[in-house]
Amino acid sequence: MTLVACIGGGQLGRMLALAGIPLGLRFRFLDPSADAPAAEVGELVVGAYDDRSALARLADGADAVTYEFENVPVDAARSIGALPPPRALELGQDRLTEKELFGRLGIPTARFGSTGDTGLPALVKSRRLGYDGKGQRLVHADEPLGEYELAEELVAFERELSIVAVRGRDGDTRFWPLAENVHRDGILRVTRAPAVAAPAAEAEDFVTRLLDDLGYVGVIALELFEVGGSLLANEFAPRVHNTGHWTIDGAETSQFENHLRAILGLPLGSTAARAPSVMVNLIGDVPAVGALLELPGAHVHLYGKESRPGRKVGHVTLVGAPDDAVAEAIRLAEEAGR
Amino acid sequence: MTLVACIGGGQLGRMLALAGIPLGLRFRFLDPSADAPAAEVGELVVGAYDDRSALARLADGADAVTYEFENVPVDAARSIGALPPPRALELGQDRLTEKELFGRLGIPTARFGSTGDTGLPALVKSRRLGYDGKGQRLVHADEPLGEYELAEELVAFERELSIVAVRGRDGDTRFWPLAENVHRDGILRVTRAPAVAAPAAEAEDFVTRLLDDLGYVGVIALELFEVGGSLLANEFAPRVHNTGHWTIDGAETSQFENHLRAILGLPLGSTAARAPSVMVNLIGDVPAVGALLELPGAHVHLYGKESRPGRKVGHVTLVGAPDDAVAEAIRLAEEAGR
Repeated sequence: MTLVACIGGGQLGRMLALAGIPLGLRFRFLDPSADAPAAEVGELVVGAYDDRSALARLADGADAVTYEFENVPVDAARSIGALPPPRALELGQDRLTEKELFGRLGIPTARFGSTGDTGLPALVKSRRLGYDGKGQRLVHADEPLGEYELAEELVAFERELSIVAVRGRDGDTRFWPLAENVHRDGILRVTRAPAVAAPAAEAEDFVTRLLDDLGYVGVIALELFEVGGSLLANEFAPRVHNTGHWTIDGAETSQFENHLRAILGLPLGSTAARAPSVMVNLIGDVPAVGALLELPGAHVHLYGKESRPGRKVGHVTLVGAPDDAVAEAIRLAEEAGR
Repeated sequence: MTLVACIGGGQLGRMLALAGIPLGLRFRFLDPSADAPAAEVGELVVGAYDDRSALARLADGADAVTYEFENVPVDAARSIGALPPPRALELGQDRLTEKELFGRLGIPTARFGSTGDTGLPALVKSRRLGYDGKGQRLVHADEPLGEYELAEELVAFERELSIVAVRGRDGDTRFWPLAENVHRDGILRVTRAPAVAAPAAEAEDFVTRLLDDLGYVGVIALELFEVGGSLLANEFAPRVHNTGHWTIDGAETSQFENHLRAILGLPLGSTAARAPSVMVNLIGDVPAVGALLELPGAHVHLYGKESRPGRKVGHVTLVGAPDDAVAEAIRLAEEAGR
């Protein structure tokens, strides 16, 4: 039986396994936590991500190795032959090298560098280990930046979009329809897909440049700002992505299944949308499941995590649902998360 | 966390768990085999189905108990409060009481009884423990039947249909579209759903009579013959059913998810079809997965079982696929199963 090893055993690993078990795959995860969400659907190796012996146990006999978060130590990923290519991790882990990569590939971004480069006000971000809005501040006056800080132009974007794409071992590349995303406090709250009247060709062009340059295999997500009808790249994630969760219920093939197909060298599945979908993150705590399931078109995904303020504990996707059902899902999520 | 206990750990239990884990459910199975397919997605109690101590371990702390095959000992199901109601098991386990129930509820069937009652030729079946065509023979002359045998009229039906339905704890009842089924050697090979021009109202009426009489909770399948545009009931299965597997990929809510919603008292989900679907059983052995995944609209479901002639080892559902893709899936399945 085919074994997939995954660095990280969070909800993304869990959803990978739920997509892969029907394909006859088995899963093994490496996670520092003994109650990692993926432990319910695969074998769990408890250990640090840079623990050589734990990594060796993870990879032992595996047919493919992957990872489910972008702060995996690059050496660890490289040492056990993980896909997507660790170079994607390496370049993406530093906001400066990430933006320089965009620049080299002709993918436009907001201005970045010092506050002199960006103008004011600017967002000053930690170059490394920043995600979900952690480690960033808005500055209104020129100030010297720390060695591992980067200023970014504050962009008055019309909306946040993302494109999730997958590239197979043979280079076959597919794109899910663009998604429109709403963040608050730096955390994704709502994704609507397919995004209405989105510049898909431009987004597909940008992500293809990335995928081809990186010799990529697997799923990638590229976050974009739409400004005056054009796109600016914000950041990419070399993994399955929260803005692609709607694909489990709303697309012909989910990002999780296609990621597995890609890293295993299997043919990719259709990325077409089945119907308009809205994904609502459950942050902090889970509403009464019965209230969610009563909503038309609702598909509930809980991650088996303890409640905690600001923590992603699940999501609900409404497929082909009326606006009032979507509004009610958002209200239930907000109320539970307060 | 909510725990569901299930008597039987075969592929049906496995698919129940794959549908329920996203709802935050955990699973425990009772199965005599230590390598039961469901063991990958839940806790496994290895024991006989009538072992009181194993049943107690199965049910310990469970929020709901169910079963995944129809030959569960009725006393065992009753002793741990399983749903669907064990009376459905009891009446269904004997072809005679099953047909008498149909008769009492005004649901037409083929003639049954002695070969004098049925005319010749007739199918003589074991009254108990018959499934997948085992334990039946065609007789061309009157003969005395054994104590546990029953003759059934040989019906020249136009096609075999089935209806899968679900009834909640509150009596809410939903029906998936009728499915058209092809059996060979007594084993289901192909299901097409929704069945074209099927007498849905009549089938829904029949299954509603059954559900209401049995005070039913959960998913039920009713197999039917279509003869001259009318329906005859053949048999029912008080569980999720092979002719409902297409609902995983082809319906808004799968039979597995709705079965769980029903037994847990949660609201039921929509049973509408997403697109025309064809489910092809993989019997005996699995074709190359890559060849299946190359087919448009293909969704592969493997059960983690060793190959063995006549054994159901998986299925593939093609959603919204062209005829040639369906033909190729059937060809691949036949070739692998030879």
